Amino acid sequence: MIELGANRYGKRAIRLVKVVRDRQGHRVRDLTVDVALEGDFAAAHTAGDNTLVVATDTMKNTVYALAAEHLSGAIEAFGIILATHFLAFPQVRGAIIGLREHRWAPIIGAGGPAPNAFRRAGDATRTASVAAARDATVVESGLEDLVVMKTARSAFSGFPRDGYTTLGEAHDRIMATKVTATWRHAGPAVDWDASHESVSATLLEVFAEHESESVQHSIWLMGTAMLERHAEIDEVRMTLPNLHHWPVDLAPLGGTNRGEIFVATTEPHGLIEATVRRPAS
Amino acid sequence: MIELGANRYGKRAIRLVKVVRDRQGHRVRDLTVDVALEGDFAAAHTAGDNTLVVATDTMKNTVYALAAEHLSGAIEAFGIILATHFLAFPQVRGAIIGLREHRWAPIIGAGGPAPNAFRRAGDATRTASVAAARDATVVESGLEDLVVMKTARSAFSGFPRDGYTTLGEAHDRIMATKVTATWRHAGPAVDWDASHESVSATLLEVFAEHESESVQHSIWLMGTAMLERHAEIDEVRMTLPNLHHWPVDLAPLGGTNRGEIFVATTEPHGLIEATVRRPAS
Amino acid sequence: MIELGANRYGKRAIRLVKVVRDRQGHRVRDLTVDVALEGDFAAAHTAGDNTLVVATDTMKNTVYALAAEHLSGAIEAFGIILATHFLAFPQVRGAIIGLREHRWAPIIGAGGPAPNAFRRAGDATRTASVAAARDATVVESGLEDLVVMKTARSAFSGFPRDGYTTLGEAHDRIMATKVTATWRHAGPAVDWDASHESVSATLLEVFAEHESESVQHSIWLMGTAMLERHAEIDEVRMTLPNLHHWPVDLAPLGGTNRGEIFVATTEPHGLIEATVRRPAS
Amino acid sequence: MIELGANRYGKRAIRLVKVVRDRQGHRVRDLTVDVALEGDFAAAHTAGDNTLVVATDTMKNTVYALAAEHLSGAIEAFGIILATHFLAFPQVRGAIIGLREHRWAPIIGAGGPAPNAFRRAGDATRTASVAAARDATVVESGLEDLVVMKTARSAFSGFPRDGYTTLGEAHDRIMATKVTATWRHAGPAVDWDASHESVSATLLEVFAEHESESVQHSIWLMGTAMLERHAEIDEVRMTLPNLHHWPVDLAPLGGTNRGEIFVATTEPHGLIEATVRRPAS
Repeated sequence: MIELGANRYGKRAIRLVKVVRDRQGHRVRDLTVDVALEGDFAAAHTAGDNTLVVATDTMKNTVYALAAEHLSGAIEAFGIILATHFLAFPQVRGAIIGLREHRWAPIIGAGGPAPNAFRRAGDATRTASVAAARDATVVESGLEDLVVMKTARSAFSGFPRDGYTTLGEAHDRIMATKVTATWRHAGPAVDWDASHESVSATLLEVFAEHESESVQHSIWLMGTAMLERHAEIDEVRMTLPNLHHWPVDLAPLGGTNRGEIFVATTEPHGLIEATVRRPAS
Repeated sequence: MIELGANRYGKRAIRLVKVVRDRQGHRVRDLTVDVALEGDFAAAHTAGDNTLVVATDTMKNTVYALAAEHLSGAIEAFGIILATHFLAFPQVRGAIIGLREHRWAPIIGAGGPAPNAFRRAGDATRTASVAAARDATVVESGLEDLVVMKTARSAFSGFPRDGYTTLGEAHDRIMATKVTATWRHAGPAVDWDASHESVSATLLEVFAEHESESVQHSIWLMGTAMLERHAEIDEVRMTLPNLHHWPVDLAPLGGTNRGEIFVATTEPHGLIEATVRRPAS
Repeated sequence: MIELGANRYGKRAIRLVKVVRDRQGHRVRDLTVDVALEGDFAAAHTAGDNTLVVATDTMKNTVYALAAEHLSGAIEAFGIILATHFLAFPQVRGAIIGLREHRWAPIIGAGGPAPNAFRRAGDATRTASVAAARDATVVESGLEDLVVMKTARSAFSGFPRDGYTTLGEAHDRIMATKVTATWRHAGPAVDWDASHESVSATLLEVFAEHESESVQHSIWLMGTAMLERHAEIDEVRMTLPNLHHWPVDLAPLGGTNRGEIFVATTEPHGLIEATVRRPAS
Repeated sequence: MIELGANRYGKRAIRLVKVVRDRQGHRVRDLTVDVALEGDFAAAHTAGDNTLVVATDTMKNTVYALAAEHLSGAIEAFGIILATHFLAFPQVRGAIIGLREHRWAPIIGAGGPAPNAFRRAGDATRTASVAAARDATVVESGLEDLVVMKTARSAFSGFPRDGYTTLGEAHDRIMATKVTATWRHAGPAVDWDASHESVSATLLEVFAEHESESVQHSIWLMGTAMLERHAEIDEVRMTLPNLHHWPVDLAPLGGTNRGEIFVATTEPHGLIEATVRRPAS
């Protein structure tokens, strides 16, 4: 009369730092890894039978052990190795690996970059996800916590008005957002680092240069450019909060606001989500 | 060659407090409301045409205006009123309203409950979501931030071991979790408050009383009881982090840990998600 | 030419859960402990000499080891035991222990309170600090994260107006705050639990009942009542953010706001801090 | 019998964005400002008399109004203007202005830096505080949220061992911390931007290059260098959490950890605080 529906389980927030000790200097890799598995886990739920349940503690150990040997390139490549490992369990039908990389850059001193001292760069987090099944693997790359602002060429006008509409037409407003973007790779064999760099650069360039009529419009223009300039990806998804910057009314304070003084707010915020893609052929 | 895929937009984190001023005392309703719309918004993306784009600022105003008149009962009922309002725009095909209610209770003094002074109860947040289309409305109720712990009758054993497994068998462990649970209503006409209270009570009672072989097992037992005892709901979804409490090894410190002293941790944590439901007939 | 000034060091955020397994049922103690030491640590700074530096890892171990034996009563008592332990190091001149207790209550089911299942009460955190030197020990008790609201009997009027003042006089406003309060014990021998309960009750009762002309006024009234009714304490310190609830202007939306509909905000907020005390005799 | 002790009040988290629209391009100033006043406010507490209480809402308005005219240089200079303004109220004895600046940098595209599109740099926050009284003004500058790591030249050994000590001697460990540093200016007339840049550079350079015996030792070395190389400051205060990176034991997993694989943790953490200064002459 009652049945088990969709289910998955795994380990979240596995915090992994790898110090690569090359002769000419160190490099720091700093990752947060999430592992989730789907498969033949009904008995664990309905009968309390753990025979097939790979412990989440084992997942965590596996991430550390495989990082020692295999974390030498892009997080996408490491994700594929992890997903492949977990798919080797016959009861696993799908392994989903989420990865975020926190970037550290050498401290720059008078004598150039330090060989073994680093500063965390907080201006965006590179992300990847690998969703692997026996017959297909989907790799997505992305960015999160990229906070950007346009101080010109952003408008929002021509929207419908009803009895609850008080917002004025804006032909020149501030647009600020914290970008979460992911893009799906069309196939498996890519120079992940180079691809991430160039796709991200396109996103930023279009953000900087386009004339925006709305956040929706901006997503479309960024997404289409990313797809047009980067044949290796076939779908882009973006989630953009509209972090409103309201002009301060200085008139009651004896001043005039010539588009200079704003209150930065976070609550409430707009939230715009859209997918832009190549049509399935 | 490039097309728009799934998209939605709306306003998040609309913070609304309503003070209901009855003769015998005040009541405080404290809600966080999210609004999202789906529909005929392609032109906004691809052509920068906002003719059909209800401004998210208008959504915010609408929530406040309708709260003045219509927020008198359960958040589910208020969500239905909001969703119905937004569906009246012909370009809207789906309106999704998310609601969280932060509970305030009268301060209790020597003379009983204060008529107009309140204390925020931080022990769980009641949630609801209403997803309305022209031909169907789905109402879900739920809970989040409910933090619970079992100090007995929780085990995890019999799981597979490989070269990366170091976790021991546990026949008596602590299980702690922060419950996020939602349950879907089978139909529209329910006493929402009474239903929420009794479904939540079942969840808590089963959590307290069952013998758990794993978090998966716990979800199944809680979910089946919720469905068996409450005919008005037909599906339960739970997301339960496993907030590990590791026993401290006191032996090197000259002591013995008789299952008393634990380190509470949040990183990494297990994450177990499952749906339990009545089969579609 | 350059000297070391004030310095201290220690361990923060030691997360400790103790399950007390009585015959009639379990109890959960859940503490976050901070340890800081002051003393003869100049050489550690100026010469890199760690001979006298008790490792912060040792502090953490000490908290767990002493909790096994000595955490059976109030956090103030446990704090005194910890501070006394660290003062036994001759190089330590001052030991400052900060403690926060996160309260868990038994889950209540049809059959009464569960013996071994708990729910975290999120409605305030009990705090204590013990600052011990060889010749004196100061014990403070307190509360944090106590969120309270007055929906009547709160005003703010008669304040000065200048060219930058736009706030109107408010004779009936909402006052909401998140209380951080500490009170200093005049001497060492108190029933800490009973004292905490009654001092907290006074704070809440006065909050509920007084006529407030400002947050400053509220602090004074609460603080004086706490001192007048509780001879065991001689000083009260409070830090109260003014979490503004702004009335929504419903007129442009076709409605009227009869003191019912408010926007809850957190940024910016007022912050009012004051000490109320018995004069040094 | 009961008296008012130390007290202050003000407005926190005033979020201010100023867009400076120069001909050759825009610049973004993004500040969080805190205002606190001390003075003749006893009657507000003890009598509910607000005659002298400058409203915190007025403080907020003042920050926006003065930003329009006077925010053109360093946050220290703007802080002095704000403090001076509030000191003009005769009842104010001390005005304390806290300022944090969130840095935005132009987005760099193929054609160089964008004139009106920006990316928030998240790698540290510049801070300042101005504490002004009628007879003296103290200006401090600083940094917060600067996250740095040494992967070599950091040790911690030679510390005392007792029955609760399990930590091993470390001759080559990772040191990671999130720096909060403030430095006090000896006098009023400084090129604030140049000074901040060069003091910060010294902090980072010494962090990168020194041989650390402990976090205490690091603070001393950084602080003395900052004072020795920068005559304009006379005191440095640092608060450094020790964000432990624990080596993963790979032996049970069939591997060997050659100082490469670490768990990054935040709870518990060490916390080291010290002041380094020129002696008062």
